[in-house]
Amino acid sequence: MSAAERAAEESGEWSGVTPDAARRLVSAAVQAFAERGYHATTTRDIAGRAGMSPAALYIHYKTKEELLYRISSTGHEKALRIMGAAAEAGGSATDRLRDAVRAFARWHAEHHTTARVIQYELQALGPDHYAEIAGLRRRTDRLLRQIIQDGADSGEFRVDDVPGTTLAVLSLCVDVARWFSADGPRTPDEVGALYADLVLRMVGGSV
Amino acid sequence: MSAAERAAEESGEWSGVTPDAARRLVSAAVQAFAERGYHATTTRDIAGRAGMSPAALYIHYKTKEELLYRISSTGHEKALRIMGAAAEAGGSATDRLRDAVRAFARWHAEHHTTARVIQYELQALGPDHYAEIAGLRRRTDRLLRQIIQDGADSGEFRVDDVPGTTLAVLSLCVDVARWFSADGPRTPDEVGALYADLVLRMVGGSV
Repeated sequence: MSAAERAAEESGEWSGVTPDAARRLVSAAVQAFAERGYHATTTRDIAGRAGMSPAALYIHYKTKEELLYRISSTGHEKALRIMGAAAEAGGSATDRLRDAVRAFARWHAEHHTTARVIQYELQALGPDHYAEIAGLRRRTDRLLRQIIQDGADSGEFRVDDVPGTTLAVLSLCVDVARWFSADGPRTPDEVGALYADLVLRMVGGSV
Repeated sequence: MSAAERAAEESGEWSGVTPDAARRLVSAAVQAFAERGYHATTTRDIAGRAGMSPAALYIHYKTKEELLYRISSTGHEKALRIMGAAAEAGGSATDRLRDAVRAFARWHAEHHTTARVIQYELQALGPDHYAEIAGLRRRTDRLLRQIIQDGADSGEFRVDDVPGTTLAVLSLCVDVARWFSADGPRTPDEVGALYADLVLRMVGGSV
């Protein structure tokens, strides 16, 4: 990741985390986990990246797992809100699915570093935190499944396997975080538009 | 991963690696990298899992990176062979695409632990090894792109963006490795069949 890319991500992504020191720690933790993995990162590494002492880190986060949980819950709540906004916007199932996929894929491109951490380090969460995040994931899945089911019921879509198609659509969008690069040929908006088109084809809808 | 799952993976996946000690080390390294990440794993951890001393490990692999490279090249070569077999089988573009996606998705389900390691730890390879693996990935991509282009040219498919659709199809199959669980509701064969159907829809082909 380039310095410019990092700066762009940092500017807006964690604006809800206060105070400023806590926000810097979350941002530093995301970068460290993405580069080296959760288990290879120490709280000392994270504090150092944030320009703070390990003692200053502990004022805000008691453990490394608490930082991962904060990152994971913030990211998953954002993903759920994106899906919820599309699901509840009204309009045809076609419109809602197009909006949902466009926004969900775009988010995974724009926030690919965070998205990688929250997808690939799930197993490092403690049991209670894991259960809470799994609940957010199930709610996101249900919202998308309902859009697809609505389109199948209304005759807009032809879908043989609603749960399987839901899984594939979510998977397609999530994996954007793995391959997306800000230096690549496509912008997040272009990825969103392409994927909305491909997903409407997958459900047998009108593109 | 359950013990039974691990045993099943180990039995066949690394049969080409000889002698037996080298094969045990590769298998142990895959498990360790998948559980803790490459950077958090030591050669001592790997030797211990294989029931060997660190000194015995060095007879076969000089560095941890050499083990990752062996895992990555074996996995990527297998993925390329799967794609090549489908691409060169003859028949319509529809038949070739169905076979390619079915086999590629199934492989990522069956070998999900290895596939995660080779996808998520790419950046840990040294520059020469990375360049070699990137070459295998480009060849796999080109084979799939050619099938999709053939179908567009013959009128079997309606595709607006061949490179973008190719990227999405590969991504969909690769991400099976992230979510697939042997304890889940679908077998690797069922995932392959579902995905072949969804991808033929994506390219506007006849399911």
